Amino acid sequence: MLSVGLLGAGRIGQVHAANIAHHKDSQLVAVSDVFAEPASKLAKEYAIEVRSTEAILSDPAIDAVLIATSTDTHSDLIEAAVAAGKSVLCEKPVDLSLERAKRCQDVVAKSKQPVMIGFNRRFDPNFATLKAAFHAGDIGKGELLTVTSFDPAPPPVSYVKVSGGLYRDMMIHDFDIVCWLFGAVPQRVSAAGASLVDPEIGAAGDVDTAIVTLQFADGRLAVIKNSRRAAFGYDQRIELLGSTGMLSAENMLENTVVKATSAGVTSAKPEHFFLERYNKAYQIEWNAFVEAVAAKTAFPASLADGVNALALAEAANASLKQGKTIELAHFL
Amino acid sequence: MLSVGLLGAGRIGQVHAANIAHHKDSQLVAVSDVFAEPASKLAKEYAIEVRSTEAILSDPAIDAVLIATSTDTHSDLIEAAVAAGKSVLCEKPVDLSLERAKRCQDVVAKSKQPVMIGFNRRFDPNFATLKAAFHAGDIGKGELLTVTSFDPAPPPVSYVKVSGGLYRDMMIHDFDIVCWLFGAVPQRVSAAGASLVDPEIGAAGDVDTAIVTLQFADGRLAVIKNSRRAAFGYDQRIELLGSTGMLSAENMLENTVVKATSAGVTSAKPEHFFLERYNKAYQIEWNAFVEAVAAKTAFPASLADGVNALALAEAANASLKQGKTIELAHFL
Amino acid sequence: MLSVGLLGAGRIGQVHAANIAHHKDSQLVAVSDVFAEPASKLAKEYAIEVRSTEAILSDPAIDAVLIATSTDTHSDLIEAAVAAGKSVLCEKPVDLSLERAKRCQDVVAKSKQPVMIGFNRRFDPNFATLKAAFHAGDIGKGELLTVTSFDPAPPPVSYVKVSGGLYRDMMIHDFDIVCWLFGAVPQRVSAAGASLVDPEIGAAGDVDTAIVTLQFADGRLAVIKNSRRAAFGYDQRIELLGSTGMLSAENMLENTVVKATSAGVTSAKPEHFFLERYNKAYQIEWNAFVEAVAAKTAFPASLADGVNALALAEAANASLKQGKTIELAHFL
Amino acid sequence: MLSVGLLGAGRIGQVHAANIAHHKDSQLVAVSDVFAEPASKLAKEYAIEVRSTEAILSDPAIDAVLIATSTDTHSDLIEAAVAAGKSVLCEKPVDLSLERAKRCQDVVAKSKQPVMIGFNRRFDPNFATLKAAFHAGDIGKGELLTVTSFDPAPPPVSYVKVSGGLYRDMMIHDFDIVCWLFGAVPQRVSAAGASLVDPEIGAAGDVDTAIVTLQFADGRLAVIKNSRRAAFGYDQRIELLGSTGMLSAENMLENTVVKATSAGVTSAKPEHFFLERYNKAYQIEWNAFVEAVAAKTAFPASLADGVNALALAEAANASLKQGKTIELAHFL
Repeated sequence: MLSVGLLGAGRIGQVHAANIAHHKDSQLVAVSDVFAEPASKLAKEYAIEVRSTEAILSDPAIDAVLIATSTDTHSDLIEAAVAAGKSVLCEKPVDLSLERAKRCQDVVAKSKQPVMIGFNRRFDPNFATLKAAFHAGDIGKGELLTVTSFDPAPPPVSYVKVSGGLYRDMMIHDFDIVCWLFGAVPQRVSAAGASLVDPEIGAAGDVDTAIVTLQFADGRLAVIKNSRRAAFGYDQRIELLGSTGMLSAENMLENTVVKATSAGVTSAKPEHFFLERYNKAYQIEWNAFVEAVAAKTAFPASLADGVNALALAEAANASLKQGKTIELAHFL
Repeated sequence: MLSVGLLGAGRIGQVHAANIAHHKDSQLVAVSDVFAEPASKLAKEYAIEVRSTEAILSDPAIDAVLIATSTDTHSDLIEAAVAAGKSVLCEKPVDLSLERAKRCQDVVAKSKQPVMIGFNRRFDPNFATLKAAFHAGDIGKGELLTVTSFDPAPPPVSYVKVSGGLYRDMMIHDFDIVCWLFGAVPQRVSAAGASLVDPEIGAAGDVDTAIVTLQFADGRLAVIKNSRRAAFGYDQRIELLGSTGMLSAENMLENTVVKATSAGVTSAKPEHFFLERYNKAYQIEWNAFVEAVAAKTAFPASLADGVNALALAEAANASLKQGKTIELAHFL
Repeated sequence: MLSVGLLGAGRIGQVHAANIAHHKDSQLVAVSDVFAEPASKLAKEYAIEVRSTEAILSDPAIDAVLIATSTDTHSDLIEAAVAAGKSVLCEKPVDLSLERAKRCQDVVAKSKQPVMIGFNRRFDPNFATLKAAFHAGDIGKGELLTVTSFDPAPPPVSYVKVSGGLYRDMMIHDFDIVCWLFGAVPQRVSAAGASLVDPEIGAAGDVDTAIVTLQFADGRLAVIKNSRRAAFGYDQRIELLGSTGMLSAENMLENTVVKATSAGVTSAKPEHFFLERYNKAYQIEWNAFVEAVAAKTAFPASLADGVNALALAEAANASLKQGKTIELAHFL
Repeated sequence: MLSVGLLGAGRIGQVHAANIAHHKDSQLVAVSDVFAEPASKLAKEYAIEVRSTEAILSDPAIDAVLIATSTDTHSDLIEAAVAAGKSVLCEKPVDLSLERAKRCQDVVAKSKQPVMIGFNRRFDPNFATLKAAFHAGDIGKGELLTVTSFDPAPPPVSYVKVSGGLYRDMMIHDFDIVCWLFGAVPQRVSAAGASLVDPEIGAAGDVDTAIVTLQFADGRLAVIKNSRRAAFGYDQRIELLGSTGMLSAENMLENTVVKATSAGVTSAKPEHFFLERYNKAYQIEWNAFVEAVAAKTAFPASLADGVNALALAEAANASLKQGKTIELAHFL
């Protein structure tokens, strides 16, 4: 039974709390948060204690911590947790600063404690099925990968300002999916973007609509499309053209009901947002963490994966600013 | 907090146990079964006691029982449970004997204890969405309803022999769905059937492929199609033609991955069987029971509904045997 | 080059005229109609002559006639045409009277002239693909066949009154499809029906919504669903469950455009009615006729097929009236 | 009645010949080709004359010419045809040389004769329906456009060598579709590409897999994906994200048959290649030409559209070579 402390009681912390508590081989024992109210609410729901982060980290009875705090605390908390001998699952991104993330990676490398990054989409059953079929050779060699990732609505501009920008905050997931599917890191990055959804996002120096093209050393191509707004819901699709066919993972719909009238034939929308769409992925992610800790095997999403995705985001920012294709090597 | 005793620790009992245990307003306190092994296994998993049925029914600390035993015990257990003052959720069918089910209904009518029948499909989110859209007037007046219900593979003939036959054992669900959607009981029943899947099912006097047509007093029509075998999985669909359109509920697929090759474009199969397809429906069903007990409101699936479905099954048997349309009034 | 006279210049006659004229191995040379105006309009369009039916039949330069007149003239014209030595393609149904159709069949049997009945759906590329896959063994042995056939809107009651009723006028196509797919004539017929769409149809003694169940000597089952009104268009589907899988032919849509908004995901409606949906089928049908005449091979839809479909319609009428399953043998 | 001479009797010339001959307001009167055999074969089929190009252009009885010769002759023939006073429909691309195409444009501008470029995809009913819905405001303002265009199999390398390269030969269609949908010419072009399908294509200096990102002056984005090989057939899709929704045009399938077995659920492949997929588009294109000539209205695809698409191809080549985003203004 893995004894777990939860750092961060916000929206995503609550998702993890439920999965930790319901897993047969893990138990949630304490929670910390800089805000008293969400922490005590969560603690009450699971009949656990609110403690300080320090108290959680120094408790020898706690085996693992799940870091679901704000991004700017991730690197510090990862380092503190591995120093305290805890197994760590940390939410993405590792950091907004690539340089800081790399230092964190060095610190972790010296510890004996494994760190997993919460790239939840790797655990989505649809994407995992697609990857398995691809690796089984169902479509031959991969050639052209398209990742579509649209949020249902843009976040408040106040959030955008501290988010690190679309590439680091939102497309980070898609960068990881591309690396994960192709089993490699791209060589070149070319970015385009615009503020079309909300002019205040543009005024804050960010884009809300973006296309990034990635090319691998062997020529394989990938393109990622992001928008902060899809009026019909959360659009999360993958399409992979290979030498003998194509694999695609379509959206999950809210239900299977179809209505046909004189106005046309109407189906349900995609699951609204990540909490609905990736609900199962979060459970599977947690299970993967618990199993890897118990079996002392490698995590299915490593700190290095987190650093790679961050480097791609930095390269995309550079490409957008310079209007040219960027070699990723400059950032690794 | 509703304190619950589970009668029956078989496959479906285990499904209910998980839902009872995980629901925030109910707790599982005891289980009984005629077989010691499954009972003790389930008890161990939930850290509860194995007791005799009598001990459960006579315990004043237990508020409700869930009856998931073999069909031939349902009526007796329902009567005993209401006599003991328990709220009851009983699996379908009420009984294999319509006459016995009606007597049970009379006994329950005299008690003050509510009884709910586990017609799980009413709680399937897709079917519920279809019904809501229909009742919201999305397709006008209902005219022609089609229910397709195919199992992935036939049960053993030993089971078929004690099952009461396809109409009582399998189509009972579909009879209920028709009544539930149209908010009425049909007037006339016409059945056709054959043993095409497994000749031993025919030798046992049953059919494995069946079509039943139902007509309501106001002329509305419904047709139910059953097969004990669909090689591609559990086929569970509803199609309702109305005066201004059509609503259909399609199958839930195992995943959303599509593979396109020179051999064609292949999607996933439907969820394999009822434990997968109706997984969520069982949770919602249990929640509906807990809420109705707490609020003292009518159950969304009553004992009368169970008796009506059984009467339709009897009428279908009579129609098949006599080769003519049967008035349901003879059975009510 | 097959020289063809067209009998009947109405809506369906015009469809055939275009196909005859555009086919590389046939030419349209004359048209007749009881109404002068449509005949002269059609003649002008194709630069051909309007003649009397007698003149067409007695012209030795004409090889074949296509009979697209009103149903009550079909038997007489078929007999006259074969007597005149013409190859004949006659629209369905053969006749409204089964007895008259059988007499016509006897007359034709004695002639050397082949007669084809225009069961256009046999030539629909989707249905033909389904049949080919079925006969190739893709789903094993056929067990349960469902034919859905809904018109977009009911015809005028004046038409209904002379139509012979839904089973002879509309379901005749579906009876033929069932026989064609299963390669046999059913043994038993059970019909249900109601007037739900237009009360005047009911007042005229007909139904507008109907379900007919058919059973073959070896137990195989088929069900046909008809409605005179589907607000979303012409619904023409086949679903065939077999021992190792299921084949279905879905509707053809007006286009492939999908619109996703906050209101849902909307696709196009099915092709509106038979002229659109079966446009290609009529071309293929005509080609099949021309090829069979040239090669002196059997027609892919015979007069006997027409008589069988009519017998099924009669049996359905009897079943509906008597409220019981009817043996088709009484009508053959 | 428009009297038409056909220049070029190859594969695409044959498609046009049929449409010209079958259109009620046009007639095919002569054909020319540098190769005698295809010209005489086509002439025989339509009972027309083979003539020299000069004889066709100098015949005052001929109103229009359709230019379906090899690309390197397009500009010369357009100029000669307008000099001869003919209405012209010329296949794409205008030329392999942007400079030559612009000179041709200047010559045509001085003539009174209209020239239409055969961008057949504009006339595809699905794409046209998408555009109409977009312009009707169904999804608000357009923001992110994706065009997927994969051929079923690569052409011979001998063809690739004279084709002008993928951007000019294949993506030219997609450049045009983007301009046509957004009603403007992009400001910036960024290209990526690789030879993944056939190494000989790479050895010939061309790519076979390509992604091009386009940005408009107002920030709108478009991405085009091309591959010379999709094992499942001709993949031709458009997806347009707007401020209030998304419109997509999906592939047309060979048929609507679906097969469900234990191996999964299989549908038909897309129509195999352009002759099948755009069969109807070519007819509609020809009709649009005939109607515009008769009504003396502007063509729905102008020579300027052809020059714009070619400029985009040039810019894409420059971007690929230089590894940076290119301003289209340098090429216009």
